Amino acid sequence: MQETKIVLSDRDIPKQWYNIMADMPNLPKPPLHPGTKQPVGPDDLSAIFPMALIEQEVTTERWIDIPEEVLQVYSLWRPSPLYRAHRLEAALGTPARIYYKYEGVSPAGSHKPNTAIPQAYYNKAAGVRKIATETGAGQWGSALSLAGSLFGIDVTVFMVKVSYSQKPYRRIMMETWGGTVHASPSNLTNSGRKILEADPDNEGSLGIAISEAVEVAATNSDTNYALGSVLNHVLLHQTVIGLEAKKQFEIAGDYPDVIVGCCGGGSNLGGVSFPFLQDKINGKDLRIVAVEPTSCPTLTKGEFRYDFGDTAGLTPLLMMYTLGHDFVPPGIHAGGLRYHADSPLICQLYHDKLIEAIAHKQTAVFEAAIQFAKTEGIIPAPESSHAIRGAIDEALKAKEEGKEKTIFFNLSGNGYLDLAAYENYLSGKLVDYEYPEEKIKEALDRLPVV
Amino acid sequence: MQETKIVLSDRDIPKQWYNIMADMPNLPKPPLHPGTKQPVGPDDLSAIFPMALIEQEVTTERWIDIPEEVLQVYSLWRPSPLYRAHRLEAALGTPARIYYKYEGVSPAGSHKPNTAIPQAYYNKAAGVRKIATETGAGQWGSALSLAGSLFGIDVTVFMVKVSYSQKPYRRIMMETWGGTVHASPSNLTNSGRKILEADPDNEGSLGIAISEAVEVAATNSDTNYALGSVLNHVLLHQTVIGLEAKKQFEIAGDYPDVIVGCCGGGSNLGGVSFPFLQDKINGKDLRIVAVEPTSCPTLTKGEFRYDFGDTAGLTPLLMMYTLGHDFVPPGIHAGGLRYHADSPLICQLYHDKLIEAIAHKQTAVFEAAIQFAKTEGIIPAPESSHAIRGAIDEALKAKEEGKEKTIFFNLSGNGYLDLAAYENYLSGKLVDYEYPEEKIKEALDRLPVV
Repeated sequence: MQETKIVLSDRDIPKQWYNIMADMPNLPKPPLHPGTKQPVGPDDLSAIFPMALIEQEVTTERWIDIPEEVLQVYSLWRPSPLYRAHRLEAALGTPARIYYKYEGVSPAGSHKPNTAIPQAYYNKAAGVRKIATETGAGQWGSALSLAGSLFGIDVTVFMVKVSYSQKPYRRIMMETWGGTVHASPSNLTNSGRKILEADPDNEGSLGIAISEAVEVAATNSDTNYALGSVLNHVLLHQTVIGLEAKKQFEIAGDYPDVIVGCCGGGSNLGGVSFPFLQDKINGKDLRIVAVEPTSCPTLTKGEFRYDFGDTAGLTPLLMMYTLGHDFVPPGIHAGGLRYHADSPLICQLYHDKLIEAIAHKQTAVFEAAIQFAKTEGIIPAPESSHAIRGAIDEALKAKEEGKEKTIFFNLSGNGYLDLAAYENYLSGKLVDYEYPEEKIKEALDRLPVV
Repeated sequence: MQETKIVLSDRDIPKQWYNIMADMPNLPKPPLHPGTKQPVGPDDLSAIFPMALIEQEVTTERWIDIPEEVLQVYSLWRPSPLYRAHRLEAALGTPARIYYKYEGVSPAGSHKPNTAIPQAYYNKAAGVRKIATETGAGQWGSALSLAGSLFGIDVTVFMVKVSYSQKPYRRIMMETWGGTVHASPSNLTNSGRKILEADPDNEGSLGIAISEAVEVAATNSDTNYALGSVLNHVLLHQTVIGLEAKKQFEIAGDYPDVIVGCCGGGSNLGGVSFPFLQDKINGKDLRIVAVEPTSCPTLTKGEFRYDFGDTAGLTPLLMMYTLGHDFVPPGIHAGGLRYHADSPLICQLYHDKLIEAIAHKQTAVFEAAIQFAKTEGIIPAPESSHAIRGAIDEALKAKEEGKEKTIFFNLSGNGYLDLAAYENYLSGKLVDYEYPEEKIKEALDRLPVV
C-alpha cells in the first residue's frame, strides 16, 4: 500500500510561529497614517487592535511563542494532513511528485481559523469583549465567529451585500456560532450610509465592508477590529501551515522544488511558504508561485505603491501591489481572491523576486478543480483551485520536460459551500473575465500621491 | 496541553472488517423472496449484486479481508480521528469523559463512503460498469458518486424529489463527481410512472426511490444496484469505524461504558459499535444506545416482523422493526433517519436486548447540535446530532449521579450542507413531530402476513 498522507499528532503542533521579517532582505516600507501620511506608531493602532497583535505587526524577532490556550484550540483540527496526490499524478502521467497540505479540515473549512483563534485570544486577554470585522465570501467571518464562540467574544460581521444575499449558508454558519451578520453597505455606519445615499442598490465590496467594520471599532471603546489577511501578524499566524509541512516533508524524505498557493490578500500563500522561504533566502533552490485570478490581477497587473486597505480611506496606507482601493473586481466565484491589493510582506517579496506570480482564468481553474475532485476525492474551494491549476501546470511541464520534480501546494479550503459555483461551471454558464488594463490605470490615477 | 484527539497513520487502517454474525447469539431470520415468500438464495440476488457482496451478506466468518485497492482509497481520509470532547465536558460540568469518532472528514462529509468504496470496487472487479441507487437527503448518493469517480463506474442516482428540489447542493456534489441524478418518482421506471399517474405531484420517498433503482438494475443487464445501509455487507464495511476506535481507545488507555449512535438504517451505529459489541457478548459491561427521531420511531414504536425494504415491494422481505413499508415520515431535517425500518442485524440485536433505543425530538437535537458547535467547533449533521443529544444526556445523568463514566459517540457527518436546517432552528421555525401510533398501526395492518 502506498502512503497517501502524513499525519502528525497534537503534540507536533508547532510551539512558535515563524516571522519572515527576521530574514527578508528588505522589510516592507512602514504603514502611513491616512491623515498625516506619516508612519503610524503603536498608539495609532491601539484603538482597534490589542497591543500583543500590534507588537507582532512590527517585531523582527524570528520566533514568536504560540500561547498555550491557542495551541489547545488549534488541536481541534491541527496538525492538518500532508497528502501525496498519487491518484492525480497517475491521471496526469507526470514524473512529478505532487503534495498538498489540506486546510479544509478546520471547522470553518479553510485556513482562516489559524489566525482567527489567536486574534480572538489576544483580544480576550486584553479584556476586549467585542470584535467587528468584514467578510467577502464569508470564510473569514465564519472563522472569526467560530473563534468568538470558543473564547466568549461577541463578533459582528459586515458581509458584502451580494454574498449576503446569494450565499446564505456562510451567513447561517456565522450565526450558528453566535456571530451577528449585517449586509454591507449598511445603515449602521457613516461609511455605509454615505454609499447607500449615493447608490441605494450598491452591492458592496470588501473595501466598503472593511470601512464599516473599522469605523465601528474606532468609534466604540469596547470594540476592536480584526482582519483576516494582508497584515503581518495574520501571515505570522498562518506560518503554522508551512512549519507543519516542513516537519511532514522531513518524514516523507522529500523537499519541494516549487510551492504553489492561491493569492488574494496573501495569508495562505505566506503561511505555507514563509518557513520554506527562509531556506531559499539561505540559498536553497526553490520557487514560490502565487496564483491569482485574471479578474483581479493584483501582483501581475498592479502597481507597487502606497494605497489604502479599504474603500473609504480609513485604514493606514500600505505599500502594496494594488489595482486601486476603489477597484471593484467582477463577481467571480473565488470571492476570497477579490481584494484590490496584497499583503505588504508578499508584495515586498514579489518585488524582490523571491516570489513569482501568475494569473489564471476561472474556467481553467474549475477544470483543474474537477480533475482534482475526481481523482483525489476532495471538492476544493474555488480559491484553492487556483493553486491546483498552478500545481497541475507545473506537473504537466515536468512531464513535457521528462523531469522529476517535487510540487507542493496549499489546499486552503474545501468547496462544500461553493457548490453553486460548480453548478455554474458544469452547466457551461461560467464566463472568464480579464480585467481591462485601462480601468486599472484609471483606478490607480485616482490614488493619493505619497 | 491536554490531548484533544488521537490520530492514526495510513498503515493503522484495519486490514479486515469485523463480522458480528460470527458472534451474535441469534442470527437474523433469512430474507424472503417477495414473490414466493421463501428464503432467497444467492441466485435471486445475482441480478443486482456482485457475488463477492452476496457472499459477505451471508457469511458467518468473523474476519473479512479488506482488498488492497479499497485500503488505498480509504487512506484518502482514514483513519478518522478520535476526539476527546474536553470543551463540551467543561461546558456540561460533567465528571464523564466524552469521546467522539469524526466521520465527517471523508470527501463526501459522512461515514457513507466506508461502504460505497468497497461496493464500487467489488462491482468493478466483477466487470460491472454501471450502478443505480437511491438517495434521500443525498449523503449516500454523493458517497457512491465519489466511489464511482474513483473506480470508473457510471453512477445513476434516484433522489427523493423533495430533496432534489430543496437541497440542490447535494445534487451538484454528485454531479461534480460525475454522477447522474434523477428526481424520484421519475418517468424512467414502471414504479415511478405508476406513482406519477396516481399522483403527479408526489414528492417521493426513500422507499419509492429504492423501487426505481432496483428496477433499473434488475431490468438492465449491465447495471447493478447498491444500497447505503440496512444490509449485512453494508454494516460489515462500516466496522472500520469501530475497529479504528478500539485501537484509539487502547492508546487513550480508556474504554467506553456506553456507545451512542444515531440510527436510521443502522449502518453508522453498527459500524461504530459492533467491534465493541463482540466484547459485550463476551461478558464486558457496556451499553449501546441507538438514537432515532420521534418522527420516525422504528425501534421504539415499530413492530418486529417481515417487511419489504422498498415501497413497491420489489425487494426481499427482511425481518425488521418496521413502521410499514408505505409509511411516509414527516420531512424532518435529519433526512438520513427517515427510513421505515432498520437493518436486520440491528433489529435482531435490539430484540435480544444487546442494544437499547431512545427517540428524541428534533428541537432537542438541534439544541445539542448548537451546544456542540459552540464548544467543539464542528457543525454536525442533523442525523449525527441525535447521537450528540444522546451523549449529552448520558453525561448529564453522570453529573446528577456524580459518577465518572466513559461516553463514546459517533459523529457520523458534518453539517456543511445542512445549514438551512440550522437557520430553521435558529429562527424558531422548527417544529417537533411525534408520529401518531394509530397511523403506525394502520401502516402495519397493510403488511403481508408471512
